[in-house]
Amino acid sequence: MSDVVYIEDLAGHEGETVSIRGWLYNQRSSGKIAFLQVRDGTGVVQAIVSRNDVSESVWESVGQLTQESSLIVRGEVKADERAPGGFELGLEDLETIHIAEKYPITPKEHGIEFLMDQRHLWLRSSRQIAAMKIRAKVTRICRSYYDDRGFTLIDSPILTPASAEGTSTLFSTDYFGETAYLTQSGQLYLEPACMALGKVYCFGPTFRAEKSKTRRHLLEFWMLEPEVAFAMLDDIMDLAEDSIEHVVQTALVECADELEVLERDTTSLQRVQKPFPRISYDEAVEILAGAGEQFEWGDDFGGGDETVISEQFDRPVMVHRYPTVVKAFYMEPDPERPEVALAVDMLAPEGYGEIIGGSQRIHDHDLLLSRIHEHGLNEDAYKWYLEIRRYGTVPHSGFGMGLERVVAWISGLPHLRETIPYPRLLGRIYP
Amino acid sequence: MSDVVYIEDLAGHEGETVSIRGWLYNQRSSGKIAFLQVRDGTGVVQAIVSRNDVSESVWESVGQLTQESSLIVRGEVKADERAPGGFELGLEDLETIHIAEKYPITPKEHGIEFLMDQRHLWLRSSRQIAAMKIRAKVTRICRSYYDDRGFTLIDSPILTPASAEGTSTLFSTDYFGETAYLTQSGQLYLEPACMALGKVYCFGPTFRAEKSKTRRHLLEFWMLEPEVAFAMLDDIMDLAEDSIEHVVQTALVECADELEVLERDTTSLQRVQKPFPRISYDEAVEILAGAGEQFEWGDDFGGGDETVISEQFDRPVMVHRYPTVVKAFYMEPDPERPEVALAVDMLAPEGYGEIIGGSQRIHDHDLLLSRIHEHGLNEDAYKWYLEIRRYGTVPHSGFGMGLERVVAWISGLPHLRETIPYPRLLGRIYP
Repeated sequence: MSDVVYIEDLAGHEGETVSIRGWLYNQRSSGKIAFLQVRDGTGVVQAIVSRNDVSESVWESVGQLTQESSLIVRGEVKADERAPGGFELGLEDLETIHIAEKYPITPKEHGIEFLMDQRHLWLRSSRQIAAMKIRAKVTRICRSYYDDRGFTLIDSPILTPASAEGTSTLFSTDYFGETAYLTQSGQLYLEPACMALGKVYCFGPTFRAEKSKTRRHLLEFWMLEPEVAFAMLDDIMDLAEDSIEHVVQTALVECADELEVLERDTTSLQRVQKPFPRISYDEAVEILAGAGEQFEWGDDFGGGDETVISEQFDRPVMVHRYPTVVKAFYMEPDPERPEVALAVDMLAPEGYGEIIGGSQRIHDHDLLLSRIHEHGLNEDAYKWYLEIRRYGTVPHSGFGMGLERVVAWISGLPHLRETIPYPRLLGRIYP
Repeated sequence: MSDVVYIEDLAGHEGETVSIRGWLYNQRSSGKIAFLQVRDGTGVVQAIVSRNDVSESVWESVGQLTQESSLIVRGEVKADERAPGGFELGLEDLETIHIAEKYPITPKEHGIEFLMDQRHLWLRSSRQIAAMKIRAKVTRICRSYYDDRGFTLIDSPILTPASAEGTSTLFSTDYFGETAYLTQSGQLYLEPACMALGKVYCFGPTFRAEKSKTRRHLLEFWMLEPEVAFAMLDDIMDLAEDSIEHVVQTALVECADELEVLERDTTSLQRVQKPFPRISYDEAVEILAGAGEQFEWGDDFGGGDETVISEQFDRPVMVHRYPTVVKAFYMEPDPERPEVALAVDMLAPEGYGEIIGGSQRIHDHDLLLSRIHEHGLNEDAYKWYLEIRRYGTVPHSGFGMGLERVVAWISGLPHLRETIPYPRLLGRIYP
């Protein structure tokens, strides 16, 4: 059919007769006039059916349509200020493709487990469509940010022989007689690549077999990780700050429609402007003490602690120089104070928690080797990683940004499960 | 250091004194003058050291530099037509960061297994850098192609409860007591999503635990998969053709420098212009018979068969309507000839084999169910997939494009292992 158009393109077809292929989202009827809300993935348009203007068989077909039935509607595109997209369709013909069985998701409230079981259908709801579009747009904004600044994309492997972030939360698989683990981070593979290409990043799925069920955790999630040769902690904090400002401010423009669907109050997002506050771990501990929290120097922050700290600021806050003991083996110690690592976490406002974690990496071979031993890691598995420190080693730094946490924060969604098409959670691998 | 610049930006600093941070790629000396080839990931520049113009200690440092030592060179940017990037550096000062141990990769020939063992270092070689940049640019061109045409990115899950492409080549992992498989394709998850969003794509890692070692196979590779509601076989062939033309022609422009490094003769790539030839499987079988090949109707093409077929054409060829028995359970049978499926493969020229495989999908619930039974698949695991056919089912089609095969073809690399940063092959998971 040469006259098929997408709903988002209707504006260019005013006065023309077009066909729209899609699904019935909703309908109401007042005797001689029926109003069909038709969606096609790019938008929703109202098709108006006047009993007097269509054939008897078309009018009968209208009466038989159920929610989510698939159809082709044909009619004239008419401007109407009251219509959501500014246009409606004067229906002239209707072809029913498939009458849907009784659709399980209705405008009434459903329990979350039921909706998650129906994720393959729930994706058709306007809020879920908005969330998926925000995710896709944020992904594109992020990739463009790094591509435009001379970073080379380096896809790090998923199947790895060793762990990047501790050995207790690994998914493993048989790799023709060897054991392979699903990657927790691409970082170890980016470090050699940044010695080849200067500035690199990866952006792919990562895995944590964590036996915890919180709104901030997924077992499978996407992480964007830049790694920069010759960068020190301050450089990587600058990059984290600049990239988050860019992503949030660009998303506010490009995702305006979707944020409206989600009824996101964007006031606090407007404030995400450089400079972000930078405080040391020590200062963060003081904030917790001042707020009457039980917290001991040397512990890692829990989700509640992060919220208390971030509530002191009106934009993301960067906390740097954590105790070495709570951070990963590869983090460079502060030369002036070796008990803290040159690490940084960025905490989002509004209780969305850690969205970025990074550090300067150890570039001295012998120090790294002793850390591998201290952490009880298998030296052989890290042979190649150590070797980077034998051939022109240089200071370098990087961080990881959790895509779903950033999307949840921008979208104002309290739980990560609505920020990814098919969430993987403890006890959930269906659909 | 405020005067640090990247080599690719030297043109904007002619006459200025700048610092470049990088590694020694090569050097030669003629008594009183030394020529240092310095690379920083964005390019290579020659720094010229005249013994009379530098301090004694700098001259001594120059003498101690080994291949891949890390350093900071400082000097004046001078235009020189003979220099690769058009500029060279008159060295004034040198800071050695780290003297590299004897570097294992030298300009002499090395065996491929040795180089693969040194992949973390091999990435620093100019040909590998070129291949990685082409991969990154092709990825960006592909994503932009779909983003710019109204497709929504839908990241399909890696951990899945069921198989998409047959059960014999699955990596599995324990998922808290259940068995999960590493995805072979995102397609099954894109089909519900295209009913929500119209046009979707995924682009992520996929896995095949194939016990074969060929130059065209990786155990872990990236696949781009578009899926379009209401699209029929012809529509998806149009999309395959248009997208490949766009990707190749855009890459020829954007990757011109890298293709030169790889000494790629791009004559045949220039010819990748629409329309591409479209032949049926039957016609392809006739081509094989005409070439004297032993081949029986009903078999699937091997790599050698694909080469014979593609050699008949000067651009990619699309072969459609394969015997149902050699194709996946979800492919729509040709209504006029149910023994063939509405499937299409695109074969690249020059022996690069299948770069795209796709089909129209079965949209009738009962037919799909019977196919699931015929293939001995577990109906319960596909319950959600079947349900898509109960609520407004529509014809839909899609395909998968193997990133590494497209990159190998564009780059003129005979083996996929050089098209991905850290290849996973039978017997290789290191580094």
